[in-house]
Amino acid sequence: MAVYTDISDDELDDLLDQYDLGQALSCKGVAEGVENSNFLLHTEAGYYFLTLYEKRVNAEDLPFFLGLMEHLAAGGFMSPRPIEAKDGNNLKEVAGRPAAIIEFLDGRSVRRITPQHCTLLGQALAQLHTIGSDFKMTRVNTLSLSSWRPLYEACLKSDAGQSDARIFPEVEKEIAFLENHWPTDLPSGIIHADLFPDNIFFLKDKVSGVIDYYFACTDFFAYDLAICVNAWCFENDGSFNITKARKLLNGYRDVRAFSQQELEFLPLLCRGAAVRFLLTRHYDWLNQIEGALVKPKDPMEYLKKLQFHQAVKNVAAYGLD
Amino acid sequence: MAVYTDISDDELDDLLDQYDLGQALSCKGVAEGVENSNFLLHTEAGYYFLTLYEKRVNAEDLPFFLGLMEHLAAGGFMSPRPIEAKDGNNLKEVAGRPAAIIEFLDGRSVRRITPQHCTLLGQALAQLHTIGSDFKMTRVNTLSLSSWRPLYEACLKSDAGQSDARIFPEVEKEIAFLENHWPTDLPSGIIHADLFPDNIFFLKDKVSGVIDYYFACTDFFAYDLAICVNAWCFENDGSFNITKARKLLNGYRDVRAFSQQELEFLPLLCRGAAVRFLLTRHYDWLNQIEGALVKPKDPMEYLKKLQFHQAVKNVAAYGLD
Repeated sequence: MAVYTDISDDELDDLLDQYDLGQALSCKGVAEGVENSNFLLHTEAGYYFLTLYEKRVNAEDLPFFLGLMEHLAAGGFMSPRPIEAKDGNNLKEVAGRPAAIIEFLDGRSVRRITPQHCTLLGQALAQLHTIGSDFKMTRVNTLSLSSWRPLYEACLKSDAGQSDARIFPEVEKEIAFLENHWPTDLPSGIIHADLFPDNIFFLKDKVSGVIDYYFACTDFFAYDLAICVNAWCFENDGSFNITKARKLLNGYRDVRAFSQQELEFLPLLCRGAAVRFLLTRHYDWLNQIEGALVKPKDPMEYLKKLQFHQAVKNVAAYGLD
Repeated sequence: MAVYTDISDDELDDLLDQYDLGQALSCKGVAEGVENSNFLLHTEAGYYFLTLYEKRVNAEDLPFFLGLMEHLAAGGFMSPRPIEAKDGNNLKEVAGRPAAIIEFLDGRSVRRITPQHCTLLGQALAQLHTIGSDFKMTRVNTLSLSSWRPLYEACLKSDAGQSDARIFPEVEKEIAFLENHWPTDLPSGIIHADLFPDNIFFLKDKVSGVIDYYFACTDFFAYDLAICVNAWCFENDGSFNITKARKLLNGYRDVRAFSQQELEFLPLLCRGAAVRFLLTRHYDWLNQIEGALVKPKDPMEYLKKLQFHQAVKNVAAYGLD
């Protein structure tokens, strides 16, 4: 949740002059989104999100992210649609930042996750993979395997004794293991790569929105599932909920079949996903952004998740036969 | 701007069960309001604000604040209207906090204030005073004269050498002066007491909303004007804009006539208003709230404003004859 950049009246008027959305009736900063400044914008044409992209998003990636949202929405997926300006572009500039006006989707993210939410999540994820498969652009996953060692080293450097020193040898050993065993050839395509509960809206027992494509990239489909296993299938006390994992995986399978290889690699991919969030959270924890309205999340949660996956022998531990 | 308290799905559903507003379609924390947690709530009936009152608002005052908003809106003033629940109450509880659902008003607060905005402000302020005059409840201004010495002493105590020590003797001398010269009998009634640019929305060259009544109280009407002179009539470089003050006062006079006494006391009331904001900002600066998503405002701005008013001989300095 964050508003980093304020927008003046004049800047907003200038922006809306470039669209067919009428005048701005109100514009309120919302406490949502970590990487960007988000505003709920009411114009004469309706309600929208106005997003200003802050430094952490690479501006060169924006055509990919916005193009993907457009592609997914056009394919019937519940992604918010970026609004085209009069000149056909969906990317503009406000207050010196790249900016986009995006469809406002109703729905609410859930705090108390039920197994039924996991079924719906699995189905939505498989739909995203399926509908995304004919999107023409690609983007390297800059937070996958090859980034982990440099991130680890950056954490080590920033740490200066702040955190529990025991984690470092354990994480380094894990990275070395993953470097030696990471798959090279699994079914791949567009993945969301950050499908946490905050990023899915539910409404009347259906998924009404999947948002925040700013980590989307081209990678193994099953790695996206592994991220969701980590993000959705552990309880607050750290225990693994096998029922939720079974629902997630079966929900996914309702829409897209797994290959045998994907199933075999799932425990390893779950370890990788745990390392990815452990490292980025740890890095953010050690390098808190001045003025950010967001508290960094506890990285240690992911060390416990990693340890769970390390003990997993095969996909049966996730509820699949 | 702040979201201090999060609301779970279940808490929101339980709240809406008590209203005739249908189900919640979305609910987003907004970066608005310093004292409260605010959410933009979309229900099947429309768009609303959901406000959770945090510790800094005295719960016993809430019937006054909400009653006043209701009274003003019923009188045709552009105050947002608190929504009554099925049981007729406009005050409920969510997540352990007192909470109200309030009409959503369109409009945008202005950053770049023009003299024309000051005319509209003056008219709106006089309307508020006029329409508020038959509101039956009263509330003592807990941030007026008698609070300044204790606040000053609390600042002195919290300071521990953090701020420019020269301000303390100067402020103490001013408080003593105000204690000796503060009027006791000027036209009084409901005042807003915090009508800063953030708290007025404009739309298509009209005032579309006056919000944030959580400092409203019973006090001199002209003191409310003095607060507005401080809040609206200085430029960013600290210089006083006499044109804006003239427009403000003349706008006010379009709707409600001043007494001769009110005019004579205006420079003194402006000094008092400057002291009030100097002290509360200084106190907030020294006592930053852990976890608050708001940066305290610079108190020294008000020292300079105070010095301007100290040099004022009569109301001609504010552009009135």
